[in-house]
Amino acid sequence: MKVLWIFAHPEAGSLNGSLRDEGVRALREQGHEVRESDLYAMGWKATVDRTDVAFDSGGDEDGGDGRMVVGDAQEAAYRAGTLSPDIRAEQEKLDWADTVVLHFPLWWFGPPAILKGWFDRVLVQGYAQVVTDAEGRTRRYGDGGLAGKRALVVTSVGARESSFGPRGVHGDLNGVLFPVHHGVFWYTGMEALPPFAVYGANRRFTERDFKEYADALRARLEGLESDTPLPFRREAGGDYDADLVLRADVAPGRTGIDAHYDENYGAHYDENVPSVPR
Amino acid sequence: MKVLWIFAHPEAGSLNGSLRDEGVRALREQGHEVRESDLYAMGWKATVDRTDVAFDSGGDEDGGDGRMVVGDAQEAAYRAGTLSPDIRAEQEKLDWADTVVLHFPLWWFGPPAILKGWFDRVLVQGYAQVVTDAEGRTRRYGDGGLAGKRALVVTSVGARESSFGPRGVHGDLNGVLFPVHHGVFWYTGMEALPPFAVYGANRRFTERDFKEYADALRARLEGLESDTPLPFRREAGGDYDADLVLRADVAPGRTGIDAHYDENYGAHYDENVPSVPR
Repeated sequence: MKVLWIFAHPEAGSLNGSLRDEGVRALREQGHEVRESDLYAMGWKATVDRTDVAFDSGGDEDGGDGRMVVGDAQEAAYRAGTLSPDIRAEQEKLDWADTVVLHFPLWWFGPPAILKGWFDRVLVQGYAQVVTDAEGRTRRYGDGGLAGKRALVVTSVGARESSFGPRGVHGDLNGVLFPVHHGVFWYTGMEALPPFAVYGANRRFTERDFKEYADALRARLEGLESDTPLPFRREAGGDYDADLVLRADVAPGRTGIDAHYDENYGAHYDENVPSVPR
Repeated sequence: MKVLWIFAHPEAGSLNGSLRDEGVRALREQGHEVRESDLYAMGWKATVDRTDVAFDSGGDEDGGDGRMVVGDAQEAAYRAGTLSPDIRAEQEKLDWADTVVLHFPLWWFGPPAILKGWFDRVLVQGYAQVVTDAEGRTRRYGDGGLAGKRALVVTSVGARESSFGPRGVHGDLNGVLFPVHHGVFWYTGMEALPPFAVYGANRRFTERDFKEYADALRARLEGLESDTPLPFRREAGGDYDADLVLRADVAPGRTGIDAHYDENYGAHYDENVPSVPR
């Protein structure tokens, strides 16, 4: 495999930094190629702004009045090859990879800003979103600019595992990560693998604690090619109507984000989120 | 009321910029005080790093070995009054406010990085999270450092409204916003009001389109003090056990993020997310 490991923690010497080192080493030992985007080490710019795009065409992307219409401006710059070099370098890595690992501490129930900014700046319209097929239909949810790749979240949380379980107070981990798994990975065509989480990450880790997690991570990485992804429905698979709403005969009566898991593939909570030792 | 309006869009002349102007004007006409944090205009730094904290104490916050342990370092700097001035200024505004409006375009199913970074940098441990009561219990979910305030998301999405409905392909809007509503607002003690969303935001807005949304926003802002918040369960309200898991007799059989809405207050989809004209 060709794995892009995207890391978003400010400290290389942290628990997460050590797990990243273990993970990259394990993949290489398993014979895979690995490239890295260590966002803090790269000084990655988090914020979308005009410096991302060549902004001198006077065309549609500026609304004709000097305003930057963000999606259109990003697409125009993408097509013209004038996105800023840091963005193009990330797109080139993504094009190379067949597998993506997003590794970050869970801050405020989502990726740190520096990683959110990687989504905002790299996955632009025309490249990863708003791409169309030969008939002009938008390719999305199970298809799209990044179709065929697989993606895995590796994260750490301070809380105990029970509190992120199916009935835990924080919301189940897959529910909390729905905007990443479904909204970023699946939306762009990437299959979302069940996440790997370190719980109780704020405690002092002993060597033994660390080894347990490092071993569990190595074991999970061995399944990168073969593990069953989260069973989201394909937009073009017949389950959604022309208004992009689940057809009445699909999962009747179910609402909310869980309705977008295909129940034919079993419960996603228990079968697809393997526990790791505590 | 004292309203802090936090705005996270790069273009003042955008649809969102115009709606922000309308909203702030409406609140002032209704007799409220308004302060603003226009994150792009302020040049807000999105990324947590060592410049946020005074990092010279050699104490526990650096793990004793030069590493920054983020949460501990932020708390130590908060207590010492040595968080960077931009962060302290935002905390002072929050302390002043009784109501918070978060206004942003929905990018990748969440806030733009610049706003995510406002959460990461401002809502530090000891201030908005990991605050304890007299008995040493953590105050969280319906209580916490920002208890007593109300908070509203105002957002725009390119997609049509049906696709964010209870069975829409993107996930229902409240499900997508759960990390903000439950994980940021409610976690820190703020009541989450039903979100206000502009749909189809990528089309060319006519004057009439804009007026419809501006009028709807004005009407919603009139309910800031009186609207019923999303009915999340209080952590200390008796529904959760010592493992922070819903007790067996509470919402039996329900799992996932929706289980954290108190069903005694009715369905949160239909009653609490008023539609706006399209």
